Amino acid sequence: MTDAPLIDGLQYARWSEKVFRQMRAGGVDAVHVTITYHENFRETVHNIEQWNRWFETFPDLIFQGRTGADVELARKTGRTAIFFGSQNPSCMEDDIGLIEILHTLGLRFMQLTYNNQSLLASGCYEDEDTGITRMGREVIQEMNRVGLVIDMSHSGEKSTLEAIELSSRPIAITHANPANWHPALRNKSDMLLRALGQSGGMLGFSVYPHHLKNGSACQLQDFCEMIARTADLMGIQHIGIGTDLCQDQPDSVVEWMRVGRWTKSIDYGEGSAKSPGFPKMPEWFSDNRHFDQIATGLRSVGMSPNEVSAVMGGNWQRFFETSFGASAATPAKVSHAAE
Amino acid sequence: MTDAPLIDGLQYARWSEKVFRQMRAGGVDAVHVTITYHENFRETVHNIEQWNRWFETFPDLIFQGRTGADVELARKTGRTAIFFGSQNPSCMEDDIGLIEILHTLGLRFMQLTYNNQSLLASGCYEDEDTGITRMGREVIQEMNRVGLVIDMSHSGEKSTLEAIELSSRPIAITHANPANWHPALRNKSDMLLRALGQSGGMLGFSVYPHHLKNGSACQLQDFCEMIARTADLMGIQHIGIGTDLCQDQPDSVVEWMRVGRWTKSIDYGEGSAKSPGFPKMPEWFSDNRHFDQIATGLRSVGMSPNEVSAVMGGNWQRFFETSFGASAATPAKVSHAAE
Repeated sequence: MTDAPLIDGLQYARWSEKVFRQMRAGGVDAVHVTITYHENFRETVHNIEQWNRWFETFPDLIFQGRTGADVELARKTGRTAIFFGSQNPSCMEDDIGLIEILHTLGLRFMQLTYNNQSLLASGCYEDEDTGITRMGREVIQEMNRVGLVIDMSHSGEKSTLEAIELSSRPIAITHANPANWHPALRNKSDMLLRALGQSGGMLGFSVYPHHLKNGSACQLQDFCEMIARTADLMGIQHIGIGTDLCQDQPDSVVEWMRVGRWTKSIDYGEGSAKSPGFPKMPEWFSDNRHFDQIATGLRSVGMSPNEVSAVMGGNWQRFFETSFGASAATPAKVSHAAE
Repeated sequence: MTDAPLIDGLQYARWSEKVFRQMRAGGVDAVHVTITYHENFRETVHNIEQWNRWFETFPDLIFQGRTGADVELARKTGRTAIFFGSQNPSCMEDDIGLIEILHTLGLRFMQLTYNNQSLLASGCYEDEDTGITRMGREVIQEMNRVGLVIDMSHSGEKSTLEAIELSSRPIAITHANPANWHPALRNKSDMLLRALGQSGGMLGFSVYPHHLKNGSACQLQDFCEMIARTADLMGIQHIGIGTDLCQDQPDSVVEWMRVGRWTKSIDYGEGSAKSPGFPKMPEWFSDNRHFDQIATGLRSVGMSPNEVSAVMGGNWQRFFETSFGASAATPAKVSHAAE
């Protein structure tokens, strides 16, 4: 056990005992898992029911994380703490009251958009980024109040900058890389990453091949050098890992992620008609047992042990500790006088 | 402050700042409130959203109770702890996974039936009581596991006896009276009450006029003498108050309670075509400021101060402390082998 935990800022595997055992084998203390994309509230609850079954069935491997302190509990009990997140706000439908309900059920991250325009903000694939909407401003305030982290991984630049500005608490981009390293629509500009770091926010580096320079052929050293440069840009305390590991998923799942119910056609997202499915993972990271290779890679590009610990989980742990609880000041907006 | 808390085992008022302030004025430390009758899951969640607004708006008066320890927190902070309950299993639809979801959202009591046959058991108004159904057995086990109390207030006798037998944890009849005192379909036989007491369960005495001898004209002394006799029957530690206070509700609400969506006709339940609405409360109890009168009445029929404290809240507090958490042994039913 190192002096800092190992935390992955995003995964969406086809969960199974195999994957949970690989988390343990890899020494993964906590994972932010995607539990829902385009599912509405009731469908999201159904997904949570499935997670409850896994927690009941594999209590020696995993448990539901709710607070930052659960990362330490995970280390002490030799299990992996599972923190829920949503990649799209479909789960809250058009009902701001569902934010607290979802938080009570354990949701700790919610993206304001997934590629497309949502009720709250603009996705990174829209031609026009109109920024945070009227409802989006209300939702950011409510997410701040209850302790639900705003995740802008799939949002447009203007929307993301406005979210940083409007949010009273630091936000996250759980899984993306710098666009100056690999110019994908999903990767982020230096200007945005600098603003994210200055606001106390967090970036999780993605290992999803469409976010990598040279895709599946990306070299570990190249990835780690990019991380070191981004540490200089944002501050070492504002970066972590967010692999976007989609292990064992059939290609029907990436189609659901991209297409949901918003179109009757096929949208290939970051893929193409020629390669519509999940891309092949880089040879140095294909499951939860391979985080050590990233840590080794970071050391080999000159990071100190403390810096490597911070990137591999220490920073996420600090962010979890300050982000998941209700805000200190929760003034009621509705005034009430004595009877 | 007495040495025991003041707890009401059931209310369904038209909640408002007025009612919450009356709870404080009456020194009520905790209330089991009905949040849903025939509402499905999504509608029940909507009702919880409304409660969340009240908790946010009136943090100096009320907060959501989740554990037995919250009764003490209520006393220490001068507020009323609100514990959620459902009078019918409509909120869990036909989905056993929703039991844990509802418990996570704070549900602490659920009736297996409301007058009619449900998916789980038979209601007290059915001609034939077929007992606990196949699904009912599974649901009882799951409610036991997560710490959701089985409430049989509106169930038939056979179903209730079977629930007592099948449940590994004590159950409750949160709001009813002995049938030997007032022979209403909703009141309970001595045989049943004895079995309830012997199993460690709880009965909450109802002040709802249809459950009272002489209805709205019931005398306080008569009510208190009945309580004293029931203490002898069940054991003093197994009884409490469950007023069934429906303060300020319009008559449309009692129609919803009785009719829900199960008929296109009117069902008058305990009322009649001549008096279809809410009955007039007895003169000695019409809101949360009047519990003192019941306590005084109990002393006047010969109960000791300790006995009165037990009935007015001490017993419910002990029951809350042992009933709302996950069961100690929660073996996973699904077997799993090493990979």
